[in-house]
Amino acid sequence: MPKTLILVGHPDLVHSGTQTFLKEVATTLTDTTWWDVTTQPVDTSTQIARLQGEMRRYDRLIFQFPLYWYSMPGVFKQWLDTVWTTPFVYGRAGEQPPLASKELGLVVTFSQAPDSYRLGGREHFSLSELMRPLDALAQAAQMTMLPIFPIAQFAYMTERERQHLLVTYAQYLSLPARAHFSDRVAWFQQWLTQNAGQHPEYAAWAAALQSQQDELADLHDTLEQMRQDEEQNGRIE
Amino acid sequence: MPKTLILVGHPDLVHSGTQTFLKEVATTLTDTTWWDVTTQPVDTSTQIARLQGEMRRYDRLIFQFPLYWYSMPGVFKQWLDTVWTTPFVYGRAGEQPPLASKELGLVVTFSQAPDSYRLGGREHFSLSELMRPLDALAQAAQMTMLPIFPIAQFAYMTERERQHLLVTYAQYLSLPARAHFSDRVAWFQQWLTQNAGQHPEYAAWAAALQSQQDELADLHDTLEQMRQDEEQNGRIE
Repeated sequence: MPKTLILVGHPDLVHSGTQTFLKEVATTLTDTTWWDVTTQPVDTSTQIARLQGEMRRYDRLIFQFPLYWYSMPGVFKQWLDTVWTTPFVYGRAGEQPPLASKELGLVVTFSQAPDSYRLGGREHFSLSELMRPLDALAQAAQMTMLPIFPIAQFAYMTERERQHLLVTYAQYLSLPARAHFSDRVAWFQQWLTQNAGQHPEYAAWAAALQSQQDELADLHDTLEQMRQDEEQNGRIE
Repeated sequence: MPKTLILVGHPDLVHSGTQTFLKEVATTLTDTTWWDVTTQPVDTSTQIARLQGEMRRYDRLIFQFPLYWYSMPGVFKQWLDTVWTTPFVYGRAGEQPPLASKELGLVVTFSQAPDSYRLGGREHFSLSELMRPLDALAQAAQMTMLPIFPIAQFAYMTERERQHLLVTYAQYLSLPARAHFSDRVAWFQQWLTQNAGQHPEYAAWAAALQSQQDELADLHDTLEQMRQDEEQNGRIE
């Protein structure tokens, strides 16, 4: 499992229901660290060097932020301008960039409908287009981009949708990239077992998963086919 | 001529040679105002409302900034997040957006070579791609985007290149969009005359321009054809 560092840049973190929810999920995971970048002191080069040294210890960095005018909030960008110095991104002459081969994930929250960000949608541009500057940064640092993890309209989610978000977000943080379905099931089983203390029903679910791996694999194939059909019909971006 | 407001967002404005140069050019122009957004107080809603009211008085807004990690500096973005509130961009229910039909220009400075920002170039992405978030903002506000005005490697420019920058930048600020060549010549002539006080040689140039309008038009057509040929050969992005 990758060691993951979540860098959260939110101008009003304590009042964000979405971020509070995500933080609760993140704390259930081992090998996952949560940073609120807006409260970090970054006034001296020693403080900056310490943060850079910390970041090098992780395999996966996550930039997590609400979309403000189609990009990351200014407070996060300012942290990035300050802490991600030129030698930290490109490496010193003759050395590999410090973040080379690490993964960069983006968890982007917004209040518009999920299908707003696409050609012909309300916001015209896709998140992939709007995140180009961060993609360019990842390329400069020789990092590998993970697919964007969008979270639309958290406030309107049903309990069931939040449960789904909980699991997929936890997987985004801790599953190896390009994990196969069987890896996901194994991960989910382990996660259920770990959290069965607080949620007794999880133990039964984990046992059910164990006995139904084959059926689940079949089910997965069917669902995957349906998803692909739907994509071709253009209902999902 | 449009009334133009230049919004400069630079973390260290006084030490920027590029910005000092551009400010000198801007101050020679009538109907052009220069804001350093990083020093504006934006702590109260009254201060923000006053800035919003000011911006509505102009025809053309210019965002002017150095490229920091492929986008505007955090300090500028933070100002934008604070001052460009949702009702200021979208308008209140049933009203037109306050900035509708105004122009938005981008003056982007960077230290890389001019041809770095393009497919296959050192920075992979074009400025047009990297500025998508600001294009999306302009669309939300129903503003009209002007072509980006890039300034590459100001520190390495020759005196002649700086003279050229001086004139093209002044035109970017004050010429009507899609001005024809004859408009540009007329503008240049007027500008030379206005600035002849400090630069006596300008008066003679203005007179020469007057007597050579036709020749210049021919010359322009030839140059334009050469430029188009060159574009088709892919030497200019």
